[in-house]
Amino acid sequence: MTSISRFRVRYAETDQMGVVYYGNYFVWMEIGRTELLRGMGLPYAELEKQGIMLPVAKAFAKYIAPSYYDDEISVHSTVTRFTASRIRVDYRIMRDAVPEGAQIVCVGYTEHAFISKETRKVVHAPSDIAEKVRIPANAEDLMTRV
Amino acid sequence: MTSISRFRVRYAETDQMGVVYYGNYFVWMEIGRTELLRGMGLPYAELEKQGIMLPVAKAFAKYIAPSYYDDEISVHSTVTRFTASRIRVDYRIMRDAVPEGAQIVCVGYTEHAFISKETRKVVHAPSDIAEKVRIPANAEDLMTRV
Amino acid sequence: MTSISRFRVRYAETDQMGVVYYGNYFVWMEIGRTELLRGMGLPYAELEKQGIMLPVAKAFAKYIAPSYYDDEISVHSTVTRFTASRIRVDYRIMRDAVPEGAQIVCVGYTEHAFISKETRKVVHAPSDIAEKVRIPANAEDLMTRV
Amino acid sequence: MTSISRFRVRYAETDQMGVVYYGNYFVWMEIGRTELLRGMGLPYAELEKQGIMLPVAKAFAKYIAPSYYDDEISVHSTVTRFTASRIRVDYRIMRDAVPEGAQIVCVGYTEHAFISKETRKVVHAPSDIAEKVRIPANAEDLMTRV
Repeated sequence: MTSISRFRVRYAETDQMGVVYYGNYFVWMEIGRTELLRGMGLPYAELEKQGIMLPVAKAFAKYIAPSYYDDEISVHSTVTRFTASRIRVDYRIMRDAVPEGAQIVCVGYTEHAFISKETRKVVHAPSDIAEKVRIPANAEDLMTRV
Repeated sequence: MTSISRFRVRYAETDQMGVVYYGNYFVWMEIGRTELLRGMGLPYAELEKQGIMLPVAKAFAKYIAPSYYDDEISVHSTVTRFTASRIRVDYRIMRDAVPEGAQIVCVGYTEHAFISKETRKVVHAPSDIAEKVRIPANAEDLMTRV
Repeated sequence: MTSISRFRVRYAETDQMGVVYYGNYFVWMEIGRTELLRGMGLPYAELEKQGIMLPVAKAFAKYIAPSYYDDEISVHSTVTRFTASRIRVDYRIMRDAVPEGAQIVCVGYTEHAFISKETRKVVHAPSDIAEKVRIPANAEDLMTRV
Repeated sequence: MTSISRFRVRYAETDQMGVVYYGNYFVWMEIGRTELLRGMGLPYAELEKQGIMLPVAKAFAKYIAPSYYDDEISVHSTVTRFTASRIRVDYRIMRDAVPEGAQIVCVGYTEHAFISKETRKVVHAPSDIAEKVRIPANAEDLMTRV
């Protein structure tokens, strides 16, 4: 399952190079996975209320082209790996509505561990998540290579 | 008592106008008041551990000149008002080490209420704070007029 | 004319108090005025291409209630004052879709000068802006008092 | 050559998990490489004035332990690879002054291309950089493995 989030680039997200600051793509990935979890019927805010957190263990981004203030951006997020206590999400970030058609600006992934909010220790993924996660057949193709 | 915090402008803090994004001055004010409280012997991290929070009730900034990537900045923070349950801090933000000498780039203030972390209700300022706060004689002069 | 912008609170926008960090409301105001200008037929990105910038001269926020991760936010932005070379925008920021109905969380304003991108000096507002700006009859009521 | 940058965690950098937001470590890496270049006698601000930019092509972080508001942080940055038009910097980010001694919280790297500010095309590294860069003998050991 791939979730798509759409928004415009904020002025605050640009830097003096005139493009989006590289660190902000990780904020956009977070928007993507928030929507991905919501689309699976598991809003992250609910998860935290149940005492489960999903801190980031690894994060990677490969920058392909710049994006600019006021651009229409879409983040395409897919669960590409799921084990007892870990989950990986891969992202494709696009500039939409540019004259030449949509353009990939960044790809990347994040890996997360399921953690108990109380003990801060790694725990098994809750069963309602385990039941709802679907790894697409082409997950390997969607995974960003470093 | 005036506390002085020093740091350099981060690339992340600039925007495509080539100057520091206006919202970041409020982050710098927060650095200023963190150091101000520490200098008073009341680190804010300690305050939160004691169950007291100081959320911002009002915030104002007046922008006088731009500041740039890698500039050496100093934030001059002073408690200018203190009542049973409220505190006001005024700030002068300077670019230092510029050829012409230091230059004021921004002035402003924040007002805060003392809040219980547990009940999220307004409470009286803890007595150790009340004892340590000193309002300078020239507080009125230091207060930014809107 | 009042423009309304809608989005959800990002995880990145929260702080350890469990609520949105106070500085981020100024980023939301910037989203509001971007949409306000676009709604007037004057996208800010276009304005910059024409060599006009609108740096912030003053910014004020009054915090009424906290907002939380994943909240649906709306920013209501109105031009409340317009002179030869300055513009003021007032904002009401709401949490929508809460069980009790929409709730105001923050009000505030920003004042801007029209600046030439080339000379960085104050200039007259471009005539196409001057023609399109409408100050509502109740502008005084919409202006946040400090 | 390894450069060390020191600063304290800002309140703005925490999130509702009570720890530093994962995206902010990339801002800290940027602080690290700014100081690294300055230490080499090549301030990045100068480089941009000469018409050379160093946009990020890849960025990776591995999160080992959380860091907290007001922590004293040090970023240890080393150039680990240098070719005609690319440079890689590896980072170790530490919490200092914790009772148990310093603790690694994050490791990672960024890769950059040398770009002409005017043409936005890849160019050769300026010769004054090429002359000053030193790759340490243990560069391989310092490189974060994905």
